This record gives sequence, structure tokens and C-alpha cells, in this order.
Amino acid sequence: MNHILSDKPGVRNLVEICAAKGIRYVIISPGSRNAPLNISFNEHGAFTCLSIPDERCAAFVAMGIAQQTGIPAIVTCTSGSAALNFAPAISEAFYQKIPMIVLTADRPDEWINQGEGQSINQRNIYHNYILKDYHLHLDTQDQDNNWSNNRMICEAIDISASQQGPVHINMPFREPLYGKRDYTNVSLPKIHQLQKTEFSLDSFTMEKCSQQFNSTAKVMILCGLIPRKNTELQQYIESLSSKAVVLSETTSNIQGKGIHHHIDALLTQYDKEAFKPDLLITIGHSFISKKIKLWLREFGPDDHWHISEDEQAQDVFQALTKHLRLSPNDFFRQLSLADNPDKTYPQLWKNHAVRVSRKHHQFMDSCPWSDFKAFSIILPHLPQYTNLHMGNSSPVRYIQLFPVREDILYNGNRGVSGIDGSTSTAMGAAYLSGQPTTLISGDIAFFYDSNAFWNHHLTGNLRIIVINNQGGGIFRLIAGPPSTGQLEEFFETKHDFKAKGICDTFHIPYYFAENSEELEAILPQFYAPQNNDRPAVLEIFTPREINDSVFRDYYHNLK
Amino acid sequence: MNHILSDKPGVRNLVEICAAKGIRYVIISPGSRNAPLNISFNEHGAFTCLSIPDERCAAFVAMGIAQQTGIPAIVTCTSGSAALNFAPAISEAFYQKIPMIVLTADRPDEWINQGEGQSINQRNIYHNYILKDYHLHLDTQDQDNNWSNNRMICEAIDISASQQGPVHINMPFREPLYGKRDYTNVSLPKIHQLQKTEFSLDSFTMEKCSQQFNSTAKVMILCGLIPRKNTELQQYIESLSSKAVVLSETTSNIQGKGIHHHIDALLTQYDKEAFKPDLLITIGHSFISKKIKLWLREFGPDDHWHISEDEQAQDVFQALTKHLRLSPNDFFRQLSLADNPDKTYPQLWKNHAVRVSRKHHQFMDSCPWSDFKAFSIILPHLPQYTNLHMGNSSPVRYIQLFPVREDILYNGNRGVSGIDGSTSTAMGAAYLSGQPTTLISGDIAFFYDSNAFWNHHLTGNLRIIVINNQGGGIFRLIAGPPSTGQLEEFFETKHDFKAKGICDTFHIPYYFAENSEELEAILPQFYAPQNNDRPAVLEIFTPREINDSVFRDYYHNLK
Repeated sequence: MNHILSDKPGVRNLVEICAAKGIRYVIISPGSRNAPLNISFNEHGAFTCLSIPDERCAAFVAMGIAQQTGIPAIVTCTSGSAALNFAPAISEAFYQKIPMIVLTADRPDEWINQGEGQSINQRNIYHNYILKDYHLHLDTQDQDNNWSNNRMICEAIDISASQQGPVHINMPFREPLYGKRDYTNVSLPKIHQLQKTEFSLDSFTMEKCSQQFNSTAKVMILCGLIPRKNTELQQYIESLSSKAVVLSETTSNIQGKGIHHHIDALLTQYDKEAFKPDLLITIGHSFISKKIKLWLREFGPDDHWHISEDEQAQDVFQALTKHLRLSPNDFFRQLSLADNPDKTYPQLWKNHAVRVSRKHHQFMDSCPWSDFKAFSIILPHLPQYTNLHMGNSSPVRYIQLFPVREDILYNGNRGVSGIDGSTSTAMGAAYLSGQPTTLISGDIAFFYDSNAFWNHHLTGNLRIIVINNQGGGIFRLIAGPPSTGQLEEFFETKHDFKAKGICDTFHIPYYFAENSEELEAILPQFYAPQNNDRPAVLEIFTPREINDSVFRDYYHNLK
Repeated sequence: MNHILSDKPGVRNLVEICAAKGIRYVIISPGSRNAPLNISFNEHGAFTCLSIPDERCAAFVAMGIAQQTGIPAIVTCTSGSAALNFAPAISEAFYQKIPMIVLTADRPDEWINQGEGQSINQRNIYHNYILKDYHLHLDTQDQDNNWSNNRMICEAIDISASQQGPVHINMPFREPLYGKRDYTNVSLPKIHQLQKTEFSLDSFTMEKCSQQFNSTAKVMILCGLIPRKNTELQQYIESLSSKAVVLSETTSNIQGKGIHHHIDALLTQYDKEAFKPDLLITIGHSFISKKIKLWLREFGPDDHWHISEDEQAQDVFQALTKHLRLSPNDFFRQLSLADNPDKTYPQLWKNHAVRVSRKHHQFMDSCPWSDFKAFSIILPHLPQYTNLHMGNSSPVRYIQLFPVREDILYNGNRGVSGIDGSTSTAMGAAYLSGQPTTLISGDIAFFYDSNAFWNHHLTGNLRIIVINNQGGGIFRLIAGPPSTGQLEEFFETKHDFKAKGICDTFHIPYYFAENSEELEAILPQFYAPQNNDRPAVLEIFTPREINDSVFRDYYHNLK
């Protein structure tokens, strides 16, 4: 550890508290007002610091890092509109439940709204989509202020880590900003630490849950977004698949025998009444399938239990009856199963799934070149143990239709499901994990976040596949836009732009394919191990005006 | 006018109110939730609609359009994080005082925080940097809701136009979103209109101001940001330059005989006590020169009058004694001047300015290739009546050191002075004005906003000059960063990226120059009238490690 840090004692305390609480990654967007922070995080020795100039990207990079670990990452910027560029990623972290410390430098309070440059009112600026906001005292000569700052910093990090979401610390600084001093003989700040809380049900409630679970003929377990693999939970869920119907979205990362993944395909031609559950149990959040939402809202289960440690349960199916506030692992560990459960309901679904799967493969055998075809070729080529990032909004929907791979970790920014920040998120995740990481992105999402490449921290394990269908293909897949007469300009955003120039700018190796044969041929080169010193982009051109009919044919074929 | 609009009556009313109140430009970021708005603005006939996919850019484009007219422009987007990408431009519009209607589509209230995609709490989401927030009623079948919505829309537009700043209208929609209907026989909504308010001083106050003005030996008039030319005001100010010292920043757009512009040069070697005013009068806002702020805060004038119609006056010099709340035109029109004013004080400054100007030209004669030299070559080559956009933060500071041109309109995003959005702002301004428009940008600002090119509305009157000094050159010009040992990575953000690939991607003609001779030779081609069907980029490479010493030599030479 280096003891020569910013000469602002409050910054020294902040940095030491962060280090003590296990924070290791700091994303810095360069600036002058945050110089005391930048200097100190860099000098301290406990932190890996990444310099990312576009704040919008920087915050998504921090989120991508924390997504892989569950440990808060810091993102810091100068004062003014810089802070506002963090906002999209903060909202995604809030709804995706990713911990993050947003550390904004500020001018002293008295100078706000007095015509100074790079100054806006930064207090509570992310209030609508953050766990908590803190505004630190400027004067840390006063010992009460000093204590108060340290207390707030401890609390902020604890809240972010324990509740898994973003917090905001706004820190005003007076000039000069660049001074350093030696803290060798200065005692460390006092640090308090929230101890791990366990949520549990009393034995009576647990017993009643087990009884109802066992006595209900039609139980469905539906798994939504869980960003990291949870092997214990997966084993519990897998073992329940003989008693209950288990539907799992890719983003749940719960895979295994007897678990159904292709929800949108399964819910194409089916008996809505016969297939509906009496008891629905959900874990995770941010369900992707619109079909299952609409179905369950209309043909509601008698009971819907949501299991999560969150303070509030979302009622996305308009059927919620029990919020079981404990970890899903704890719940399923304690669930007592009856012997010889009635398997009629899961068998009904299994038979259905076999039919759907056969039709899926029949369709794929004769599927023409299209987005759909491209996905079918890409997915089996992904290297083992890939961390797959799925862009919004078409890729995540297409990928749900293909067989899941148990070795893959599936991530997607489905908290808010914005078009922004997928590449930066994947870049952060790849940096952190060192695992093979592939983002599959549409062209709109790719151009939106092309500044993800504008930094010196790109790693060679990152691959980006851009499905370029010359616009927002999703708008051709849904019913309304083609009827407006404004489809190409104001919905689809038709264009003829290509990723190559972006790649040239940032020295990223670039590959492309325009048909199935080219794609099959290029994928092994694209993933060749000798090309692992830089990330690479593979742009796949698909026919804009055919993709939607192929997509519709797919569903038609399932009928 | 077309009467077939969205089948949502509230949207029809909104669109008719906007049309009636003179709004003509609508920037649309494509999306599904805002489909009723997109359909209706497009179909109506009164509006020019631009499709800009990156919301961060879209909002700056709207701001650039409104900057040129003072009439609010609309920017609209879908729900979720899309809205947050508008935030940087909204803060700039708020502090630069540019009118703008931010129209965000939303999901129905009851679905917020229930796990639906692209939904966040959008109420008051820009609260810290907006004139006012409105949340419209969803159910416009209810006549009170309908009346209330219309009333709020009228008020919002009136506030934006009269107070010159952004307002936010959040509009929830229930599906289906794409329906249309014919409103031919449906009566128009009732529209109320804020009548133009005049602010004035009573005659006694005005008389006292005139007396003090005339009896004070040392009067200084300092002109800050005024985004559009104001010929009447310019004439008043020019005529006062024999009695008072007039200092004018480029962004004031007040130019003329006897007016001093090179504040930073003038305030390099001077007698701080002798040069200080007894009475300081300011108009405009967002002063760029740090030197004048520091000087006047230390050697404060006895009186400081700020003249503006704004509700609050900023006290940027810590010397404010009178806020004269009326338009500067009205004030100076009514100011009675004494005959034969004492010209000693203005003469002192004029003599000083002659010396400084001579030294400036001496320096330029032998100035080596550098940022400084590049600006000296570019500025005289700008076409007549150029609208010059000055990027943050180096370009706007360099340009202040060179002779102003009275034909030029100077704009710069100096409200918050962020690095974000300069290109999009210039793109919007060029689209609106049709005038020759040049942005001079640093490389960091250029890459930050490269998505400004990602649309189909670029006009051939736009030229972008990128001064590529391989990083944030401003950090070499200020004292602190070089001492940190982290200059290149965490302050300057050193890089070797070039604009060419970005230009290739978006089909923008690209030019470059690497020394004075190349720059002199290329500028006439770059501005050749036959090249006016597309915008163009000229990238000028300057020596990163010399720019700062040239800059310092310049100031040394003035001593």
C-alpha cells in the first residue's frame, strides 16, 4: 500500500474505507474536479483503475464488472453533465440488481447555480433509480463532519453490497485539487460493517408451503434473471422438475434435465386452460417472454409465490399471493417433498416440448439465410464456458428459441432493457472474468454504444457479433409499425452503415459474413486462440426485408 | 393539415397545441411506446420531424435547433433509460437558457416497478435541471383529465418559451399504440396563451442608475453568453465604449468598435488595482474567462449590476449589488448619458489593448506548428456569416485569443461546459439555419459525440474541424495534472485514434492536415462550394507535447 494520496483527508478516508470493504475496481472518467479521487485510487495499491473517457460507457463498464462478482465497482467522474451520462447504467444496475458505487465530484455548494462551468445541482440527481444518495461534507477539518462522512461512506457501500444495487456519493471539492501528502503516521478511519443478514420463514409457514406444494397438482416454477451461476439452486430446481413444470429463461442461468427454456415456442400452440398452473412459483426477475406474461395475467394461477430477499415483490403476473422473503436456496433447501408426486402436469408439458422441439429442428433444416439462421449457426460455435451477453431487443428474444448450453453464462441488460450500453457491459465483464466473452448485438445497439471501444482496457477474450439487418429489426417483428407508413424512418431506423469504420478507428480486428457458408467458415477463425490479444468484431449482414417473414414462418410452423 | 392522427385523443390535442403555439421541429428517437407521438407529429403537417436514434444526440440536436431560433424544439423518446440519455442536453439547455420540450412516453403508472421492460420511474426525473415537470393523465375519456392535460401542455410550452429553458412532459400510454383515427369533425382543444410580459424599472430607479453610471469614473461593461445576434443591443453597447470599458466574450455575440474581446490576453500583465472598475455591469451569462473571475473576486468593484429578465441573478464575481430585472435592450435604451464623459479609464484599457495586440501578432509571426498556430490559420478562412460552434474546453479558450469577426455568430455549449454533445448541437444548428456552420472541436469531444453523424439529416452546410492533439490537451495547459504522474492515462486520456474511421462509417468526406502548409492548402478545398451536399470533417494533427509550451510561451510573450 502507498500512503501518499490526495492531500484532502476526506478522500484518503474514502479510499481506505473502500479498500477495507473489498472494493477492487474503479472506473475513472478523466476530469479535473475528481482529480483528488483519481490520484488516490491510482496511488493506493488496492485498486485496479480503468480510464474510460465517455461517462455513459464508463458506468456500464463498472456495471459489467460488478455483474460478474456481486461486489460493488466504483465509477467516478468530474462535476456537471458528466454525472448525467452515468444515469442510463445506474438505472439498469438498479433494476438488474447490480451493486455499484457512483462517486461524483462536485464544486462546493455555495458555487452551484452561480455561473461556474461544469456545475449543476448534483444532490439526489439519480433519485428515481438508486438505492440511496449521499452528499458528503466538504470541510473535513471539523471532526463531526469527518465522522459523518466516514459513516455515510460505510453505509453506502454496505447498502450497495447487501441490497445489490447502485448508491450515489456526491463529494464536493475546493481547489487546489492536485495536492498530495503522506499519511504514513495518520491513523485509519474507523470503519463499521453491516453484518450478513439471513432472512428465513418460521417453521409453521415453511411447513404450510411444503404441504401446499405437495398437494397442488399443477405447480409451475418460473425462473427469471439471476446474473451469476448458482449451482446449489440449480440442483434444487432440477430435482423438482419431476413434480413441477420448470420454465427457465436464459437469463436465469438455471439449466438442467427436465427444465424447459423455449417459453415463446412452447406458448405458441397450446391449450391455455389445461397448461395453466394452479400454483406459480417465481425466482429471479425481469421476465423476457411477453407471451407468458399475457397468458398468466389472463389465465391466472390461484396462487403465485415469489421468492426473493428483496424488500418488495413485483406482481408482474397480477396474481401474487405470497412474497416469501428469503433466499431461493434457503427456501428450496427447506422444502419437504412428498414421495411419489403426481407427474401428470409435468408430463403434459414434456410431451408438448418434444413436439415443439421436433418442429423447431424441422424448421431450422430448411430455414433460409436470415437473423434466425445466423443465430442457429453462431450458438453452437461459442467457445466452451462462454459468458454470452445478449443485446436488446432481438438477440435476447432469438436466443431464447435455441437450445441452452449448460456451460454458458447468459447475461443481458434486462433490468430496464434499454438499447444502450450492451457493449460496454460486455467489455467490463470480459475484463473482470478473463473467460471467453461474446456479445451478440443488433446493429442499432452496436452503433449506440460504439464508444465502448474508446479506451485502452479492451481484452482479447472479448468477441462482438453484430447482426446487421440495417435497422431495428424488432420493429418489423411486432405488429404495429408496418401499418404506420413510417416504419423505415421513425421505427426501424433503416440505414446502410457498417461497423468496419468504427473498428478501424479503435484498432479492432474486423470480420464479416453475408450468408450461411461464409458464417460457418469465418467463425473458427474469429474464435481462433491465436487471435486473443485483441477483441474482435464479426459483422453478419442479414436481409432486412426477409427476417420478419422468417420469424413469422417459424411461429406458423409451430402450429 | 392532415386530420388522421393517433387514435389517442390526448395525443391529438398535444399535437394541435404544439402546432398552434408555433412549434415546428420535432426530434424523434424511434421507439414503440412513443409511437402515438411519432405517428401524429409525422402525419400532422405542421412539423419537420428528424429521426435520431441515439437519444443523447437527439436532445442536443433539438437544443441546437432551438438555440438558433429561441422557439422551443421538441425531443421525444420511448420509456425507460432512453429518457435518461436526454439528460446531458437538458442540463445544458437549462443553464444555456435554450427552450426545449422534452416529451417522454411512459407506461401506465400502475406498471412501474412491476418488472415490465423499458420502465423506470419517470416522474420528475430531470428535476434538478429543468424549469418544470408535468405528468399527464392517461385517461383522457374523463373530461377533467382531458382539460387538465391540455392546460398543462399549454403551460409547459409557455414556460419554456417565455423563460427560455427546458420543460418535461411525461406521457403514459396503454397498448395498443399504433392505431389511427380521423379527427376531421372533432373540435380543437381550447388553448390558452401566456401573453408577453415586459419587465421594467420605475423612472426613479432608472434615473438613479443613469446618474451613477455618469458619475462613476471607472465603469466596466462585461458581456457573457447571448446565443443570437442582438443588433440593437450591440449598437447601445458600442456607443458606450467611449465612456465605459466594454469587455465582451465571443459567446456574447456583441462585437464592434471599441469593444475588447481578448480578456485572457488583456489580463496577463496589467495593474490589477488601476484597471479595476468601480462599477461593473454584466449582461449575458456563463463567463468563460477564469482570469477575470479570479481578478474581480479579489479586486471587487464597489458595485456590480446584473441586467437580465431572469428570476435570479448569479453572483459569479461575489460583488453583486443590483439585479436590474429587465431586458438589457430596455435598460440601455433608457440610460441617459451625460455629455462629454471622462474617457480616462477606457483610454487606459485602449492603450493596453494596443500593446497586447502588437505582442499577439509578433508572437503569431513566429509561432511553431501547434494548436495555437492551427487556430490562427483556421479562423480567417471561415466562410462569411459562419455560425461557429466552439467545442469544450480548449477550442473556446483558444478562439477567445484571436480577433473576433463581426460577421460570425459564435456559439458554444457553455451552460454546463460539458465535453458532451457539441457535434450534435452544431448539426441541429446547421439543419435549422442553412448558414455555413463550422464546429471546431477537440478530439475528445469529437469521439464523445461521434453518434451525431448517425442519422439521415446531416446537411451540406456543416463543417467539423477536429483538432487532434491525441488527448485532452486542456490537462497539459493547467498546472496540476502533470505533477500527478498520471497525466497521460487519467487526465489527458492519451490515444492514437483518428476520426477517419468514424467518417467512413457514416459516409462523411474526410480531410486532414499535419502542418501549417497542409492546413493552408486544404482549407479552400474543405470549404469549396461544390462540396456542399454532405458535411465534411477536417482533422488537424498537432503535436501533443508541444502545445502546452506554445500556450505558455504565448502568455510569457505578453509580459
